[in-house]
Amino acid sequence: MASSNTKFILDESKTPRAWYNIVADLKTPPAPALHPGTRQPAVPDDFAPLFPMAIIMQEVTGDREVEIPGPVRDAYLTYRPSPVIRARRLEKVLDTPAHIYFKYEGVSPAGSHKPNTAIAQAWYNKQEGVKRLTTETGAGQWGTALALAGALFGLEVKVYMVRASYDQKPYRRNLMEVYGASVVASPSPDTSYGRSVLAEHPTSPGSLGMAISEAVEDAVGRDDTKYSLGSVLNHVMLHQTVIGQEAILQMEMAGEKPDVIIGCAGGGSNFAGLTFPFAGQKLRGENDYRIVAVEPEAAPSMTRGTYEYDFGDTARMAPMVKMYTLGHDFIPAPIHAGGLRYHGMSPLVSQLRHEGVIEAKAVHQRPTFDAGVQFARSEGILPAPESCHAIRVAIDEALEAKEAGQERVILFGLSGHGHYDLTSYARYLSGQLEDYEYPAEEVREALEAVPAV
Amino acid sequence: MASSNTKFILDESKTPRAWYNIVADLKTPPAPALHPGTRQPAVPDDFAPLFPMAIIMQEVTGDREVEIPGPVRDAYLTYRPSPVIRARRLEKVLDTPAHIYFKYEGVSPAGSHKPNTAIAQAWYNKQEGVKRLTTETGAGQWGTALALAGALFGLEVKVYMVRASYDQKPYRRNLMEVYGASVVASPSPDTSYGRSVLAEHPTSPGSLGMAISEAVEDAVGRDDTKYSLGSVLNHVMLHQTVIGQEAILQMEMAGEKPDVIIGCAGGGSNFAGLTFPFAGQKLRGENDYRIVAVEPEAAPSMTRGTYEYDFGDTARMAPMVKMYTLGHDFIPAPIHAGGLRYHGMSPLVSQLRHEGVIEAKAVHQRPTFDAGVQFARSEGILPAPESCHAIRVAIDEALEAKEAGQERVILFGLSGHGHYDLTSYARYLSGQLEDYEYPAEEVREALEAVPAV
Repeated sequence: MASSNTKFILDESKTPRAWYNIVADLKTPPAPALHPGTRQPAVPDDFAPLFPMAIIMQEVTGDREVEIPGPVRDAYLTYRPSPVIRARRLEKVLDTPAHIYFKYEGVSPAGSHKPNTAIAQAWYNKQEGVKRLTTETGAGQWGTALALAGALFGLEVKVYMVRASYDQKPYRRNLMEVYGASVVASPSPDTSYGRSVLAEHPTSPGSLGMAISEAVEDAVGRDDTKYSLGSVLNHVMLHQTVIGQEAILQMEMAGEKPDVIIGCAGGGSNFAGLTFPFAGQKLRGENDYRIVAVEPEAAPSMTRGTYEYDFGDTARMAPMVKMYTLGHDFIPAPIHAGGLRYHGMSPLVSQLRHEGVIEAKAVHQRPTFDAGVQFARSEGILPAPESCHAIRVAIDEALEAKEAGQERVILFGLSGHGHYDLTSYARYLSGQLEDYEYPAEEVREALEAVPAV
Repeated sequence: MASSNTKFILDESKTPRAWYNIVADLKTPPAPALHPGTRQPAVPDDFAPLFPMAIIMQEVTGDREVEIPGPVRDAYLTYRPSPVIRARRLEKVLDTPAHIYFKYEGVSPAGSHKPNTAIAQAWYNKQEGVKRLTTETGAGQWGTALALAGALFGLEVKVYMVRASYDQKPYRRNLMEVYGASVVASPSPDTSYGRSVLAEHPTSPGSLGMAISEAVEDAVGRDDTKYSLGSVLNHVMLHQTVIGQEAILQMEMAGEKPDVIIGCAGGGSNFAGLTFPFAGQKLRGENDYRIVAVEPEAAPSMTRGTYEYDFGDTARMAPMVKMYTLGHDFIPAPIHAGGLRYHGMSPLVSQLRHEGVIEAKAVHQRPTFDAGVQFARSEGILPAPESCHAIRVAIDEALEAKEAGQERVILFGLSGHGHYDLTSYARYLSGQLEDYEYPAEEVREALEAVPAV
């Protein structure tokens, strides 16, 4: 029976002591990553210039559980466990018999789920004597999370921030600087790759691909420095599973079993974090759920892409992985959900989709903001544009349930707040937001002129 | 014995069912408000054009408890109960034997404690058939809270936002608009007072005093409209006491009794909210605490002002109240803690100060940002500049305890997050922040040229 409470918060003693590794429950073993040069299966040493060995071993492990180190759990406690909240006011506004729950990751100091892996990565690096981390950031969510993690463990952090965002989003940059990180606009004069781009295009707005190349070059070139990635790879999915493990216990507190679990998916880390622990129960035959990944129509990797080996980055420096992809040279339309503008999808999420364990849906930009504003006005919380994708589908499910007269139980992931996205909301409110079709060849050319922000 | 937990979160069943009214425990009855024209004690009808009768009765009641209506409690649950968190990482950085706890109100959707009264005020207005609320806002915290409350109860909200802030803080304005409020720059063409100012000064940057005058004129001129105020008055202090009532139970969960309780004070609502329930125990002789209000050196009403009858607003339209004041024509220096730039102090807070129940301290701007950045880097949370005043004194208390080898238990109020204050942090980090002495006559003239933001 459903609890009469609105918020469900775990006691610290019940927070997860291990991350959950879905690889242990997959029907078929995951396809190995390939070395980008030789195209042969990559071995741990291939990753050694970039990542500490503990992270590399997590990338390839088949163990179902990986213990969370004590200091990582302690640092999680600055914001975890995050709440599961029943959206009673939204249910009322929609006049639906459905019960709508959301797991809210916007309570983290960085404003999203990203610190769940940033904290783990920073700690493992610190343990192996690394003094300094480099990374790239577009809109800034990931850079902020790594800057925070660096502050908590006393590591220097250097963030290569896409020039267009650096200029347009000074607040995100300022927040990283408050945490003590050093932030530079990419392309930058700090790497030889950056200098070569600037020599040819002094006013280049930059791109995520360029910023990755700079961060990797910086890390490879210094003994005291490693590189850190915020999505796509297996160890990132692993660290995020604290979300779903908590949610399972919180839905038990609520006295309900979700019929459908919904998350937005860009590189896949938010989606995997919430849904993998539920998907594990499904794979083991313990429970059944519908699990839905929501992506933008403008970057529809799982609904319109192909499942094949591709590069993770534009410059072909990252390992090749088997995933749903729109092609590593795909340039997404400038939608405001910056975290969903990626050509590929986490290999683990891709495999679950390929094997029919999860569903995928694509939605347009304007309907996601419709949903986000309706949510803000009923529940109070301003959602990030990425999260609005999950809200859209959750509301659609609730309306379907109303149509069908069903008491459907819906759980969705609210991956972050939108306090740094208010210019996007202002554009929506003034009617200036566009929807973008998945580009045909002729549109692609036009889009290539648009800076990635 | 102190609990080993880091966060203390109440079950919903234990959240307060009544607000606590400190008037019932005061040694002497509070001095009455005076009508601004006649200077005779104001009667309830004097307030009727501005406020609904339920609020007016709360303004003057002597009852110790005022029941929180069910729909208000339900709306509180969108973000309450707020956590008490032990700042274990900060304790470690300071290497202090003190135990530092903070009550975090930044979890509200508006980012501060302000919705605690905005929600109550909106509901009482709705009950009495009011369709529309007006208010003023400077930096935007209060306007955001009332916009949120209006969205939750289906009331129109019109916010007169000081022109200088309107231009410089578009994000705050956008957030109010997402909640459905209508926001106009003040002085505006929407009121006769605004038009008269604009006729003389077409480029006026506005001031809080002007914005109040516009909001009041608007409310008085329309039958369907009332006015809403976010601090100073007794009913606002009352609504905020949910903070301290929760904190008392949470400190019991933590197994500790605070030696000192600290809050920043501008108009007094954040300070009163946290400390009045503790002060009540002190007044009733049940417990003893040191209670410290922290104000800026640039607007030191309690440490440098006089305790006398004064007007609440520059234009002398608001009732006169007995309070610590720097004079209703005082123009504070442009410190970044916009919420603390007020010439007076809540009459109830003032009386407690006058009767020696609480202490007051004034601190300079730069040391507050020193404290805020140290806090952000150890605890992760970015504090609002107002809250940094409380953090400064909490850290000083912890360092004193270290000096004295004492296990002092410190509780402070973290009234809000600083995600809309990053330009202030950027100025601090780049060394551009100034400290301001309490102005002598010669400085006052120079400051009068500075727009209030």
